Amino acid sequence: MPDQTPDTVTATSPDLTAIVLACTLSPSPSDSSSIKLGTEVLDALHEHGVQGGTVIRVVDHDVRFGVSDDEGDGDEWPGIREQVLAADILVFATPIWMGQPSAVAKMVLERLDNEIAETDDAGRPLLSDKVAVAAIVGNEDGAHHSSAMIFQALNDVGYTIPAQGVTYWVGEAMGSTDYQDLDEVPEKTAQTTATVARHAAHLARALRAMPYPAP
Amino acid sequence: MPDQTPDTVTATSPDLTAIVLACTLSPSPSDSSSIKLGTEVLDALHEHGVQGGTVIRVVDHDVRFGVSDDEGDGDEWPGIREQVLAADILVFATPIWMGQPSAVAKMVLERLDNEIAETDDAGRPLLSDKVAVAAIVGNEDGAHHSSAMIFQALNDVGYTIPAQGVTYWVGEAMGSTDYQDLDEVPEKTAQTTATVARHAAHLARALRAMPYPAP
Amino acid sequence: MPDQTPDTVTATSPDLTAIVLACTLSPSPSDSSSIKLGTEVLDALHEHGVQGGTVIRVVDHDVRFGVSDDEGDGDEWPGIREQVLAADILVFATPIWMGQPSAVAKMVLERLDNEIAETDDAGRPLLSDKVAVAAIVGNEDGAHHSSAMIFQALNDVGYTIPAQGVTYWVGEAMGSTDYQDLDEVPEKTAQTTATVARHAAHLARALRAMPYPAP
Amino acid sequence: MPDQTPDTVTATSPDLTAIVLACTLSPSPSDSSSIKLGTEVLDALHEHGVQGGTVIRVVDHDVRFGVSDDEGDGDEWPGIREQVLAADILVFATPIWMGQPSAVAKMVLERLDNEIAETDDAGRPLLSDKVAVAAIVGNEDGAHHSSAMIFQALNDVGYTIPAQGVTYWVGEAMGSTDYQDLDEVPEKTAQTTATVARHAAHLARALRAMPYPAP
Repeated sequence: MPDQTPDTVTATSPDLTAIVLACTLSPSPSDSSSIKLGTEVLDALHEHGVQGGTVIRVVDHDVRFGVSDDEGDGDEWPGIREQVLAADILVFATPIWMGQPSAVAKMVLERLDNEIAETDDAGRPLLSDKVAVAAIVGNEDGAHHSSAMIFQALNDVGYTIPAQGVTYWVGEAMGSTDYQDLDEVPEKTAQTTATVARHAAHLARALRAMPYPAP
Repeated sequence: MPDQTPDTVTATSPDLTAIVLACTLSPSPSDSSSIKLGTEVLDALHEHGVQGGTVIRVVDHDVRFGVSDDEGDGDEWPGIREQVLAADILVFATPIWMGQPSAVAKMVLERLDNEIAETDDAGRPLLSDKVAVAAIVGNEDGAHHSSAMIFQALNDVGYTIPAQGVTYWVGEAMGSTDYQDLDEVPEKTAQTTATVARHAAHLARALRAMPYPAP
Repeated sequence: MPDQTPDTVTATSPDLTAIVLACTLSPSPSDSSSIKLGTEVLDALHEHGVQGGTVIRVVDHDVRFGVSDDEGDGDEWPGIREQVLAADILVFATPIWMGQPSAVAKMVLERLDNEIAETDDAGRPLLSDKVAVAAIVGNEDGAHHSSAMIFQALNDVGYTIPAQGVTYWVGEAMGSTDYQDLDEVPEKTAQTTATVARHAAHLARALRAMPYPAP
Repeated sequence: MPDQTPDTVTATSPDLTAIVLACTLSPSPSDSSSIKLGTEVLDALHEHGVQGGTVIRVVDHDVRFGVSDDEGDGDEWPGIREQVLAADILVFATPIWMGQPSAVAKMVLERLDNEIAETDDAGRPLLSDKVAVAAIVGNEDGAHHSSAMIFQALNDVGYTIPAQGVTYWVGEAMGSTDYQDLDEVPEKTAQTTATVARHAAHLARALRAMPYPAP
């Protein structure tokens, strides 16, 4: 017996929305490969009916270390958090440093840690029914590990991870080429970005139609 | 615009099914903590309308190392694979050794590696619309890491990971108590097992109603 | 044929020194479990002839995200870096958040990334002959993974890791007790701390006597 | 005060020896990239006075899953273990599958798990004074993570990890080229292999001259 009957999702349903949290170490106006790939995911989501979408370059904001919703004293996480909570799809974009996600990425994950305890009126985590995917770039090596870290942490706090939920590019071992400096998007990365977006949009729509039941 | 309109899921839809792949290092008849926790997830799934469910103790079968569907010469993976492909929900249960998933767990993940290339008539991976969760036990430390490894690998090959998709138990640092030797299931693990099952059953049902679109 | 003959290390050799980089998310004056455990390692090092030793609470300093030696504009990493380069032994202390090392820990690792390219007159990385150990604490789960991340990154930039180079404490699964709130240091953690210090002091002394050869 | 005065290491000291544990999934006579890279490390060790050296293709032997020294009933680990215990340097060679070390690699690590409890007459772990390095190859991505897993596990059981203790090669993201099919060894991998061997031989010699003190 199903827990519930899905509502029909029609063209009159509110649009799905997405947000990109880009975790480059470099503030504006530096070019950023993780912003480039994150934006490519966002563009691909648009082809599946996802509307709008903000790209937030976290390091441009005064986000504090911590695990609370608001560390006070000018902490700019609360403003970002509001946008994260408003979006159906989170595109978590990070560069790879030392084979691992960036420190900014970890800082963002930690700021989301408290969400597991934040519940709606039905007792469900606020992030229920939201979908997260990863966009990962580096000169070389570390994409699988980075996606593992991101999936585990975001899943802990309530995100659902769609099938094949990561797109990435890295160069050959010990290389130094940046994704943003490639002549064109490599075909396999482009295909994967398309798959990730197709799956994320679909899954967000499915969870909109059939939200997780309350405990 | 949605990719598709969900079918109504009714009591007459075919039942959801689950399979537990238990990756203990010890063959029968040894007691196994990972089988115990995997079975608890299965029992909890039954409360959400999931039917049947086999617990496969992988090490009791002659499964070969490799990354193909069939390594030949008596390899018993093909028989297990058939059951995995038939189940809507995979409960991936592993002990922790050295802070990491067991070698048997890694062997099983590698046997699934080829699934990314195996597609249905519509060009979708065979594992599309299937849901995976993890059940992890150890004397001490390693559950988060183990779930990260499992999520990343199973997601790569096509599984969707529901919100809070892992239940686990580990003791205090450098402890030596087994999960199966506890007087009772710790309350937090029991609650988490219930959450994992509720989410997995729901998500599998949602993907049954609204399968991922073809490329 | 040995690359070199070790000098005799005598009581007149300059003393070995250590530094603790403590990567708690909380600035002073909050109590910190990672500072407590890091300090215990330092105390244990003193019993093996290591002198002095500073505990640096990184988050009290204005350290910037980045992978260079000096991010400019008031970046306080260069002052810390000088102390790191002066110490024979690095005690890398981090709390666990979400089963992973803290964002501050990752920020520090990234600031050390450039050291691989910084060489002495003989063409050896500046961190050659230095020894790193880890001190890791959390409410629950994540110590092995955290040590793996720290070992890999510090080894990449030139640190040598002594046998059994990590001490840690974590509580039972999903627990919420802090190390600093335990009535006493658990015996196994205390023993491990002693082992780590014995090994680190010995290895630093051995590398002092027999430095790595130049390329 | 030093714990001990190093003996002079002379040309009359017994030679250092090494062993390669190659963790390819494929039995002989298949070509193996991990055997190729592991052998290259061994060759480089020879240039630093290390003698002999066996390359063991683990999957050619009937090694059982488990965490004891001898799983009985024809288990071939004890014979391999004897060689591991006799060698000063362990070259741990593994392919990458799914961004992670192979299942065979994990099986081998688990077979070493018990070594932490096996002590010599002085109460030191049998693996004390031994040095481990990693040689990692894959079509794409996963080398840093694999070295992290290997370092953490081997360090737990008593191995010391020399500075920059891993050599590796992986291709560009989602590539399918094997290391063994490259026209020549890429220069950066060759340089890294040389560094790893130089450091490993030196550190093993230093620990021969100055063994870790007993507890």
